[in-house]
Amino acid sequence: MTEAGVIRVVFAGAQGRMGRALLPGLAAADDVTIVAEVEQGDDLERRARETRADVVVDFTEPASAVSNADALLAAGAHGVIGTTGFTEADLDRLDLAARKAGRGLIVAPNFALGMVLLQRFAEEAARYLPAVEIVETHHPDKLDAPSGTAYDTARRLARAGARAGRPGAEPARGLDVDGVRVHSLRLPGIAARQEVHFGGLGEALLLRHDAAGRDCYLPGVLAAIRAVSNRVGLVRGLEDVLFGERS
Amino acid sequence: MTEAGVIRVVFAGAQGRMGRALLPGLAAADDVTIVAEVEQGDDLERRARETRADVVVDFTEPASAVSNADALLAAGAHGVIGTTGFTEADLDRLDLAARKAGRGLIVAPNFALGMVLLQRFAEEAARYLPAVEIVETHHPDKLDAPSGTAYDTARRLARAGARAGRPGAEPARGLDVDGVRVHSLRLPGIAARQEVHFGGLGEALLLRHDAAGRDCYLPGVLAAIRAVSNRVGLVRGLEDVLFGERS
Amino acid sequence: MTEAGVIRVVFAGAQGRMGRALLPGLAAADDVTIVAEVEQGDDLERRARETRADVVVDFTEPASAVSNADALLAAGAHGVIGTTGFTEADLDRLDLAARKAGRGLIVAPNFALGMVLLQRFAEEAARYLPAVEIVETHHPDKLDAPSGTAYDTARRLARAGARAGRPGAEPARGLDVDGVRVHSLRLPGIAARQEVHFGGLGEALLLRHDAAGRDCYLPGVLAAIRAVSNRVGLVRGLEDVLFGERS
Amino acid sequence: MTEAGVIRVVFAGAQGRMGRALLPGLAAADDVTIVAEVEQGDDLERRARETRADVVVDFTEPASAVSNADALLAAGAHGVIGTTGFTEADLDRLDLAARKAGRGLIVAPNFALGMVLLQRFAEEAARYLPAVEIVETHHPDKLDAPSGTAYDTARRLARAGARAGRPGAEPARGLDVDGVRVHSLRLPGIAARQEVHFGGLGEALLLRHDAAGRDCYLPGVLAAIRAVSNRVGLVRGLEDVLFGERS
Repeated sequence: MTEAGVIRVVFAGAQGRMGRALLPGLAAADDVTIVAEVEQGDDLERRARETRADVVVDFTEPASAVSNADALLAAGAHGVIGTTGFTEADLDRLDLAARKAGRGLIVAPNFALGMVLLQRFAEEAARYLPAVEIVETHHPDKLDAPSGTAYDTARRLARAGARAGRPGAEPARGLDVDGVRVHSLRLPGIAARQEVHFGGLGEALLLRHDAAGRDCYLPGVLAAIRAVSNRVGLVRGLEDVLFGERS
Repeated sequence: MTEAGVIRVVFAGAQGRMGRALLPGLAAADDVTIVAEVEQGDDLERRARETRADVVVDFTEPASAVSNADALLAAGAHGVIGTTGFTEADLDRLDLAARKAGRGLIVAPNFALGMVLLQRFAEEAARYLPAVEIVETHHPDKLDAPSGTAYDTARRLARAGARAGRPGAEPARGLDVDGVRVHSLRLPGIAARQEVHFGGLGEALLLRHDAAGRDCYLPGVLAAIRAVSNRVGLVRGLEDVLFGERS
Repeated sequence: MTEAGVIRVVFAGAQGRMGRALLPGLAAADDVTIVAEVEQGDDLERRARETRADVVVDFTEPASAVSNADALLAAGAHGVIGTTGFTEADLDRLDLAARKAGRGLIVAPNFALGMVLLQRFAEEAARYLPAVEIVETHHPDKLDAPSGTAYDTARRLARAGARAGRPGAEPARGLDVDGVRVHSLRLPGIAARQEVHFGGLGEALLLRHDAAGRDCYLPGVLAAIRAVSNRVGLVRGLEDVLFGERS
Repeated sequence: MTEAGVIRVVFAGAQGRMGRALLPGLAAADDVTIVAEVEQGDDLERRARETRADVVVDFTEPASAVSNADALLAAGAHGVIGTTGFTEADLDRLDLAARKAGRGLIVAPNFALGMVLLQRFAEEAARYLPAVEIVETHHPDKLDAPSGTAYDTARRLARAGARAGRPGAEPARGLDVDGVRVHSLRLPGIAARQEVHFGGLGEALLLRHDAAGRDCYLPGVLAAIRAVSNRVGLVRGLEDVLFGERS
């Protein structure tokens, strides 16, 4: 029988970088028990059913994330999904599926508290200081450029009215994401950094986040695990979970 | 007779650094007319009466700011005050005086849009990442250390629950403002910079503001001049004026 | 008759941004006298002859810089040239012309002391930490991207053995200058900044230069004016002038 | 019998933070063999004799560093010492002892390549831009403030002619080391950072080093192990070892 108040978690992607970094911390939380670790190729739906999982945490590849979400909903679980690369159509379909199942799905590109704050502040600043560019730096092993999180920040800024300080098609001017320029550096010795540079009349504002290690994602993942069973449908990003809904 | 919709402004401290920097921009605004420039020694109350001032803007010395505020209220004007150094008792007294007079007084240590945003974000971040320290850099001619604005940021952070990452009485650990450490650099080539450094589990968040020139204060001063006649009593800081009251 | 020890200077481009910023400081130097200010369209050779110029300082456009250099050598003057955009062929031809004339020509993309130091340090660091990328930020009115100085830094780094931390053709990865990536931000509120980011095993080194105003170029231009008459042929950059020749 | 070309190393302080971080990398080097690991309380001289050590590496406490140095010299070994806190008198005595023994002693406060470069560049920049301040940030568990390395940088800057941009006894102005101000931040999420801020006429130069992990010290420690047997007497810092002697 399930111990009262303890959340039964299946972790998909346990052998990946995020899995190895997060599992010790999750296992140490009083109100969480890891009932199964699954990898790609395992039957996620069956494992979630057998273990009576409350929540499935998915840090696998984008390629498997949609079918994993279907599987966990079919097993009656809620989902916390940290993979990126969903299309808008994917997200709409997942929202519909979660609502039908009466379950919650939290999909977030980044679980670091400071990054969630940075994105929230960046959106607000863009209303008053619309000239903005993003510079992100990651280790050279990172395959994509820009990072999923920087791309997400750029789209949020663009929706809030931000634009590059100057247009221009020169290669040095970086990637144009809906009018916001993104620059990606790939260097050893820096784990993960994102800078949002705002410029105004005679002044400049910088927001910078540095993730030194993957332990910075643990508090956000734990908060999502604790919050998701009170949700129905898709929740995008960790902001509402951490800070409550904004009016 | 007063032209409809134009705000009649007396500027106290016109020959100071801020005065010389701000006056051309204020004079260029369609809805503002500078009806008098006064210096220390002038009779501010009489000049404000004679010129039928709507608003007195005060960028003089802390020593004269309280009596200037009394004088402008006595003349029936509203006040926008950019001097720093008021005690809590001063501010309480000014609030009472302004309420009795049925007039508004906006007192702000900093009118730069980006700095107002930085302080707002810093307060919010301190609730989630309480370990924080402040580093501010100004030109070597600045007489006080820390700057009035950095001191103000530190007190706001402390009220929001922030604390130094580590206590300690060593001189290198800077000034302790209610538990928040403040470090002041004085160097040529840098006009005015404030950094708020947050640290958390495996992550760091930086908020940095650079004021390159005094033209960055113009939009905030104009916004205060336009807003103050709709207020009664003391308004601390520019945040409400720029962003509206928070629930 | 020429006053002993005073250098007679003709300034070409006096009405440009650099000209207006530099001329008051040059005029204030005890050992320099501005004998003429010329603009494009004026006959530079004749003006230099008539005024018995020792040195012609040229801050005009790249389009006129080569013919101006020929003109000043023909007039028997030395040259200090702050325009950018010369080709290697141009520079070789100018060197030959200066040697024939027995005169010195100092050509530098940047006269700020701190930038000369940054480039010198960057070259040295690249030998030990070869993974490097450049980020430069300028005001939105700047027409070219990257800046001439950032381009120059990138080529020096490449010659010293530097390379990007990771290749890649994505637009966010910036401009590839001989293997070194350059990223250009264009934002109001920032005059001129260059950052060189080095990454190594578990460590990162940053060199950053900020030019707040054009007065930062004055000491370098004065040093070049004082040094150029002791040179024959072309001198590239201000490094030798400021720091002496390296063994 | 000793294998030709392999350096026999005794490591003192193997169970400390640096020891645990460095030993796997040292053991993996082809030309190094760890013949003993010793702790405080062990007889270092006897262990070094028994194992016929070529080099003793000491990352113990300052309190034991002087007697350890005597012990390793008595055993006929060379020394690489990474502890800090020696007085000038200590260093003079060690130099004398090493010369008598005909052995080399490399004493360095920091073995990170980028930090050695930063200190070298900082000294050179101070000759041209003498207004400078240091800001260092470490994790809250660090007991001393400022760090030994920041203190060392400050003394080098002072010897090169640097001074604070402005004097002043306010607590926010930090520690005065021979005229150079040092500010120490202690925050979680940042391993080890040192910034040297230079200011000049209209310009600013920043040198910043970040050590993300202790693996950054490995290349420098290996270089010192390889170089020390060619030295007689005390070598201060890693600069000569890495870059060769300066003229």
